[in-house]
Amino acid sequence: MSKDRTIQHNFESEELESVFVGRRDNQARPTVILIPTVVGVSDLEIGFGRQLVELGYNALVADLFGKKFRGAPRDTMFGEMNRLKADRAALRRRLQHVLDLARGLSEVSKGQIVVAGYCFGGMCALDLARSGVDIAAAVSFHGLFDPPGLPEEKIKAKVVAFHGWDDPMVPPDKVVALGHELTAAGSDWQIHAYGHVAHGFTNPNAHTIGIEGVRYNELAAERSWTSFINLLEELFASHG
Amino acid sequence: MSKDRTIQHNFESEELESVFVGRRDNQARPTVILIPTVVGVSDLEIGFGRQLVELGYNALVADLFGKKFRGAPRDTMFGEMNRLKADRAALRRRLQHVLDLARGLSEVSKGQIVVAGYCFGGMCALDLARSGVDIAAAVSFHGLFDPPGLPEEKIKAKVVAFHGWDDPMVPPDKVVALGHELTAAGSDWQIHAYGHVAHGFTNPNAHTIGIEGVRYNELAAERSWTSFINLLEELFASHG
Repeated sequence: MSKDRTIQHNFESEELESVFVGRRDNQARPTVILIPTVVGVSDLEIGFGRQLVELGYNALVADLFGKKFRGAPRDTMFGEMNRLKADRAALRRRLQHVLDLARGLSEVSKGQIVVAGYCFGGMCALDLARSGVDIAAAVSFHGLFDPPGLPEEKIKAKVVAFHGWDDPMVPPDKVVALGHELTAAGSDWQIHAYGHVAHGFTNPNAHTIGIEGVRYNELAAERSWTSFINLLEELFASHG
Repeated sequence: MSKDRTIQHNFESEELESVFVGRRDNQARPTVILIPTVVGVSDLEIGFGRQLVELGYNALVADLFGKKFRGAPRDTMFGEMNRLKADRAALRRRLQHVLDLARGLSEVSKGQIVVAGYCFGGMCALDLARSGVDIAAAVSFHGLFDPPGLPEEKIKAKVVAFHGWDDPMVPPDKVVALGHELTAAGSDWQIHAYGHVAHGFTNPNAHTIGIEGVRYNELAAERSWTSFINLLEELFASHG
């Protein structure tokens, strides 16, 4: 039902390769930009994209790290993630570039773009919303909440964060801080917290990372996905 | 499609009058015990019950205060609520009585009972779960989170709390405390927090109470209802 195509694009002389997952009819539809975890574009996010296509949306699985890192060792990718995290202003430009890429695709309905990310990608989704861009929503799945330390903009996007309460990277004080931050920024926001749920809960292979506090949770994965689809229906109910 | 009938029952010599809202066929179905706000049984909760009946469930709108208080002035009801809140062990017995009442009804599928409450009733739903009873789930809509100060039991019920972040009665530290409490009690729990949302957000007439920080929010009312129905589907998907 879906077809995938890779898209080559360049950001500040880096070669990136994202994957567009859409319907065969090439019609413009509400589109979700999916921002992968620390390991970059993988079958996990492409699979989520295909599920979205089944529901009538398109998806763009965004490469932030570079084509040459596709399938690179995990240690390499943690280094790259830390490089991108170290300069949040530059990361914001990179995210804006991905948004511009999506807006330039004929299959993307311009006013109907949602950005959703996983782990590091969740932080990226929040960061794009924090930049004040005009997107419908930003969604974080077990994302990092650390604020970017940049001038605060009014957030236009709806924000939803799906959060495992036992996530060692995001303890309760950071959850409360995100609530305060999003309130101050005027965003229409939700945080869904799940008990006994760790970091990385949407990823069936999370345990292979071998980090304490990172593991799959089928129920949380299903609940967050259902609530995500509810959000898309709230936003785009009339599109189908 | 639904029919209502009042049920007279007695708790420790007090006369109570609850309202059962069910399908005309009288078949046993998964049933939601709805525990009203401080003002007691009203058209608001009966209306929610009718919506549940449309979806294939039954509902019991529980009277905790007494038949003679139906429609009583708000000041009177706040006094009665404070009376019930002052002795949480006695409140727990009262809630157990309501649960026993539900279990005794032929239209109630015994292993498929959910308790959901509003404001004070949300606290009651949590308190029933805290007592360790065998119910499928306890759901709080803008409920109070204050722990009962009683010996802690293992919580068997799934717990979901829908919470307005700007609820002046439940500041963020109480949200965090509930997360810790439910984790310690072993419950499968969720807290959905909504930004810019006050206390009483499911009640279109909340503003008439005239208390700062108590007001209706249509979007939060819809989101919490949708997530509530998602929970019922998660629990009882095969019942229909």
